[in-house]
Amino acid sequence: MAKAKKIVVIGGGTGVFTTLTGLREYPAELSAIVTMADEGGSTGMLREDFGILPPGDVRRALVVLSKSENKVLSELFSYRFSEGVGLHGHSFGNLMLTALERVTGSFEGAIEAASRILGVEGNVIPVTLASARLMAELENGLVVRGENNIDIPSHDGRVRIKKIWLEPSAAINPSAKKAILGADLVVIGPGDLYTSILPNILVKGMSTALKKTKAKVVYVVNLMTKFGETNNFLASDFLKIMESHLGAGVVDYVIANSERPNPARLRAYVKERASLVELDKENFPKKPILISSPLIRGKGFVRHDPAKLARLLWGLA
Amino acid sequence: MAKAKKIVVIGGGTGVFTTLTGLREYPAELSAIVTMADEGGSTGMLREDFGILPPGDVRRALVVLSKSENKVLSELFSYRFSEGVGLHGHSFGNLMLTALERVTGSFEGAIEAASRILGVEGNVIPVTLASARLMAELENGLVVRGENNIDIPSHDGRVRIKKIWLEPSAAINPSAKKAILGADLVVIGPGDLYTSILPNILVKGMSTALKKTKAKVVYVVNLMTKFGETNNFLASDFLKIMESHLGAGVVDYVIANSERPNPARLRAYVKERASLVELDKENFPKKPILISSPLIRGKGFVRHDPAKLARLLWGLA
Repeated sequence: MAKAKKIVVIGGGTGVFTTLTGLREYPAELSAIVTMADEGGSTGMLREDFGILPPGDVRRALVVLSKSENKVLSELFSYRFSEGVGLHGHSFGNLMLTALERVTGSFEGAIEAASRILGVEGNVIPVTLASARLMAELENGLVVRGENNIDIPSHDGRVRIKKIWLEPSAAINPSAKKAILGADLVVIGPGDLYTSILPNILVKGMSTALKKTKAKVVYVVNLMTKFGETNNFLASDFLKIMESHLGAGVVDYVIANSERPNPARLRAYVKERASLVELDKENFPKKPILISSPLIRGKGFVRHDPAKLARLLWGLA
Repeated sequence: MAKAKKIVVIGGGTGVFTTLTGLREYPAELSAIVTMADEGGSTGMLREDFGILPPGDVRRALVVLSKSENKVLSELFSYRFSEGVGLHGHSFGNLMLTALERVTGSFEGAIEAASRILGVEGNVIPVTLASARLMAELENGLVVRGENNIDIPSHDGRVRIKKIWLEPSAAINPSAKKAILGADLVVIGPGDLYTSILPNILVKGMSTALKKTKAKVVYVVNLMTKFGETNNFLASDFLKIMESHLGAGVVDYVIANSERPNPARLRAYVKERASLVELDKENFPKKPILISSPLIRGKGFVRHDPAKLARLLWGLA
């Protein structure tokens, strides 16, 4: 029997969830490297009150990789309190990771313990073990502090982001580096470019690891633009920003959607000032290799179809 | 091989914990029937905010009966948050039972799910599935509402309790009745008489079940008096109050401590206005059979030694 392919997924938010959901159907050894810049909602409160690394993205990845037959366990882990002064809005899984951090003495210990409880197959790896804040400078010179303030802009969201960085700078988690160097395939994205994807790339040692690895490096372009981050971006713009952070030649393949959903499905996005990312093949360089394919799931929000995305990725692994 | 003895422990607070800790070393099938009158601390907050049954005593019993080799899991379940606005003071296990109640749709479903997660051997059974409040009338006529107000008196704690009851009245949980009727041995106590033990006995159908069962019924007298509940009680007073609620002839054996600890160990209790329960053999009736034995653990607070207590109980099973 051939050795299981090692696939590393880098990202944050629901994107990682989608990619892992698709890939877990294949006989691959999966690792998820997730951003530690998140500071919204339940995660943000716990980060502030407990000084822990943000648990939200770790939680989501653990749930996808849980092989426990105890369904209640993963439902519990994803449960969000909707009552209770002080508990309202908290995700149970976040509270569990927080308590486990205190019980085991480290965030990685918490992930390991939660993985054991949930019967997780695969690895969930914080991109860094350092606590850092995401900062952005806009084209009009304004500096925005904190992931949450970039994600949900209180400034004029039409002004483009000129530069982002972590403060203080943070070094790559050695486990993340090891996973990348030992991988057969590394998948970056999909996910909010500035708030979920680039915070991983910004970590010191990440681009070096991605340059050094023998793995194929794939970048998955988003389906929809995001107000305040990627307003009016064409597919090639996503790659351009990615390569401006990683350097040219690091990404081997870029995957973009070629399909237009029913206009009715896009209507919901008008309020969010988001629109479909147009595939502008003509603006793509020769390298990386562009793979365009219909990738939108059948109904609901315009999201990647986990199976369609995973099939493409598996073909590259 | 002989069939495993079925032992049912009835109580609440740390007493149940002690009894189960000792008994789990024996090849018995254990069930813990726990009070649902508790409304203090983390439990009280969750009860008020979520309208659930009180999780605290269930949590403690689950921890003792957990056979999981995953030590972190029981540490996690017992972990209490000491930081975080809104989380501070909450026990993680209580939050887990609360979330599981919402996920599974019932308090019993939550206990079952938690039992599975924790690898519990044995049963933890709420004495009633109805939500009721403990009420007390003092000898001076004052009516005190709520377990917490009896447990930590804001009234003159020297005034004895004349009468206690549940409001509204609550019926025994059918699973508790079944466990009692099928048991070989039923152990009542130790524990705070009015706030942990009698709230079980007050439940409608409890004394009938205890009369009906072929099991030996054992009552374990407390080691220390409690201000506001059992001020200046002698050992026989505990039995007297128990029999005034259960009827004479229901308790078959009464276990009382015959040992005096080092006076230094009693000093810590002066501030709490608690004192050692004196064994007044002369005041005991001929029935139930009195078993007096040294039962105090070697050091620390004056508590039952789990092994010494369990050895006596096992001999009766």
